[in-house]
Amino acid sequence: MSREYSAVLVRFGEIGIKSDQTRKRMIRLLIQHIQAALTESGVNFSKVRSEYGRIFIETNDASAAAQEASRVFGVVSTSPVVTTSASLDSIIDEGTSLAKLKFEKKKSFAVGSRRVGTHDFSSQEIREKLGAHILKNLKELDLEVDLSSPDQSIYVEVRDENAYIFTETVKGVGGMPTGSQGKVVCMISSGLDSPVAAYKVMKRGCIPVFVHFDNSPYSDETNVELATKQAQHLAQFIYNHEVKLYIVPHGDDLTDVLTHAPRKMTCVFCRRNMYRLAREIALIEDADAIVTGEIIGEQASQTTRNLLAESSAVCDFPILRPCIGDDKVEVEHLGMEIGTYKFAHEAVSCCSLPPKHPTVHSQLEAIPEAESKMDFDVLKEEIAEAEVIILRGGKRDT
Amino acid sequence: MSREYSAVLVRFGEIGIKSDQTRKRMIRLLIQHIQAALTESGVNFSKVRSEYGRIFIETNDASAAAQEASRVFGVVSTSPVVTTSASLDSIIDEGTSLAKLKFEKKKSFAVGSRRVGTHDFSSQEIREKLGAHILKNLKELDLEVDLSSPDQSIYVEVRDENAYIFTETVKGVGGMPTGSQGKVVCMISSGLDSPVAAYKVMKRGCIPVFVHFDNSPYSDETNVELATKQAQHLAQFIYNHEVKLYIVPHGDDLTDVLTHAPRKMTCVFCRRNMYRLAREIALIEDADAIVTGEIIGEQASQTTRNLLAESSAVCDFPILRPCIGDDKVEVEHLGMEIGTYKFAHEAVSCCSLPPKHPTVHSQLEAIPEAESKMDFDVLKEEIAEAEVIILRGGKRDT
Repeated sequence: MSREYSAVLVRFGEIGIKSDQTRKRMIRLLIQHIQAALTESGVNFSKVRSEYGRIFIETNDASAAAQEASRVFGVVSTSPVVTTSASLDSIIDEGTSLAKLKFEKKKSFAVGSRRVGTHDFSSQEIREKLGAHILKNLKELDLEVDLSSPDQSIYVEVRDENAYIFTETVKGVGGMPTGSQGKVVCMISSGLDSPVAAYKVMKRGCIPVFVHFDNSPYSDETNVELATKQAQHLAQFIYNHEVKLYIVPHGDDLTDVLTHAPRKMTCVFCRRNMYRLAREIALIEDADAIVTGEIIGEQASQTTRNLLAESSAVCDFPILRPCIGDDKVEVEHLGMEIGTYKFAHEAVSCCSLPPKHPTVHSQLEAIPEAESKMDFDVLKEEIAEAEVIILRGGKRDT
Repeated sequence: MSREYSAVLVRFGEIGIKSDQTRKRMIRLLIQHIQAALTESGVNFSKVRSEYGRIFIETNDASAAAQEASRVFGVVSTSPVVTTSASLDSIIDEGTSLAKLKFEKKKSFAVGSRRVGTHDFSSQEIREKLGAHILKNLKELDLEVDLSSPDQSIYVEVRDENAYIFTETVKGVGGMPTGSQGKVVCMISSGLDSPVAAYKVMKRGCIPVFVHFDNSPYSDETNVELATKQAQHLAQFIYNHEVKLYIVPHGDDLTDVLTHAPRKMTCVFCRRNMYRLAREIALIEDADAIVTGEIIGEQASQTTRNLLAESSAVCDFPILRPCIGDDKVEVEHLGMEIGTYKFAHEAVSCCSLPPKHPTVHSQLEAIPEAESKMDFDVLKEEIAEAEVIILRGGKRDT
């Protein structure tokens, strides 16, 4: 089906409005990741190059390449294109051939066009002449023109000596190229929210370092398995970077919390320790931030007052909470879209410790009092005992 | 058009899965806010009551009430309903009358139903009998049944002795009822991102305290006007709470930053001071958190490394960044949906200070060095000089 295509046009969004230096760096990253995505998935290509705010993949397998490239962070959309010379005659010839192949019968259509460079024809002329030629020469399709809401469209982009013609657009994942931002430590459970939160910052260009806290003996071992699956699934979106998953034992410090903290504040103290452990890993990894899946009001431990009680445990790293203002249903939708929902769905209870009546309004003064009795050397030991799994970025699990 | 309706059925989402005590409290809040929304907009109603996971508004102006209630945080959707007794005969009679009024000719339809309580008929029976009766008695509409993708639908909810019949559903704003969470200090500029960030946490039940930093003499005074418009626009979503806007002079501490901080880090030090000022207001207001509109990589000051450099200025309050993992285009869409985009669109440059070549990778050790020369008493003076504007919640500006 895609033998007639010779290339894929790749669009990027925000990158285009960056300063010269930043834009060039980001386009370079984007090209590297697209090359890796194509190589990883075995799609043949000869070159990936940039040209005036677009990237082109030269390939004889354009449909597959358009799909693969659409999964690379920074890509807003892709289109398999027919490449021809920037003359009105070739555009009309090739455009009509493509329409013949792609247009459905008895439907309305429109022609779109844009032009960069100097040519002896206007964009308007392309639209009028290609439209008229299609109508006249593809009578067997019984088409009609509808400029306001066409059933199908054909587009022409003319750039200097080349013209690119296409009818299909594949939606990309958006965001910014991986590695355009620093490393971030993404706390990841076997649940729904934290993988979605990790995805959101990964999409913005961050390199994730996943951390899962193993609550055993207060949780089932399937949680570690599921969190590992989540992390491996997410790693498939990262190209040209090794992705690490730390599995940190978190049972001993929980025992300390159970012994010394007010029972209705167990989860608050637990989170304080998770932040501290995540901070240690951020220091080891030279990461810039800690990322969590918290949503205001989603759990008792996630009321604004409890977030206040929890956050002071870490002062020198920002805690990024990309889902903090989302509704649960929005997080579920994104989880389904990116494929992490299925693992969360399998999850059993991740912890047996939450109290029956957890506080939603922590007394802040209870914190120093309880923590003065706790042994924070336990956290250092847990970090020393952490298992580090190397996940291969870009590897599909589906 | 809505004379036949006697009530509005209001659906809420996440609230339904909360613990007994929390759920009851949230439903109480939701009812209060719906009453305020109806009163504020002059929609007549006799009662707002809850019943098994639903709220009902008794009103003779159901279409308007359904619209107004849909704008209250916590409401997932609303439907104007015909109320009748829970007998199969009345359901069939009233259902057929409503279908006659609402259904379009020559289209397909389906009947949906659910039942709570004990009845001598099943949900399945309602669907079959009402469907058959509509087909037989509304022959002039030339309808056909399509259960998989109908053009139009009629729904019946039976709850004990009452049955509620409807054909329309208005999408609500979602989230959780205002006041189910604590106060948060929302930093708000004249731009696009910060009002959207504020909206997101407001939607989750927080009471906003808006803070705008007046950069004059380094900015135009239109910024204060636009930020005030943004805040007033957002306040319309808040019922039963006074909403404050602090306008804090921020020029003097900026002069100090200009004098002592490395030029390429101006924005980093500026943000550190904004966080500090926001923290002072959080202390005054007994707020739980600071909320900002930051998006990873959207500005040089919002790279992960610079967020790291900025965040340590405030240790004892969480900084919530609901847009941190969003693409600009997603923030734009939400801004259009909630009506804040139009003000952001008017905004001129909000500050003349950003350096030509800002750093994207702050040297952390430069911070204590530069700040040791700064006079932080200036911040206290700025807080003392802040103007406080009381915005009226629930008041429409459009």
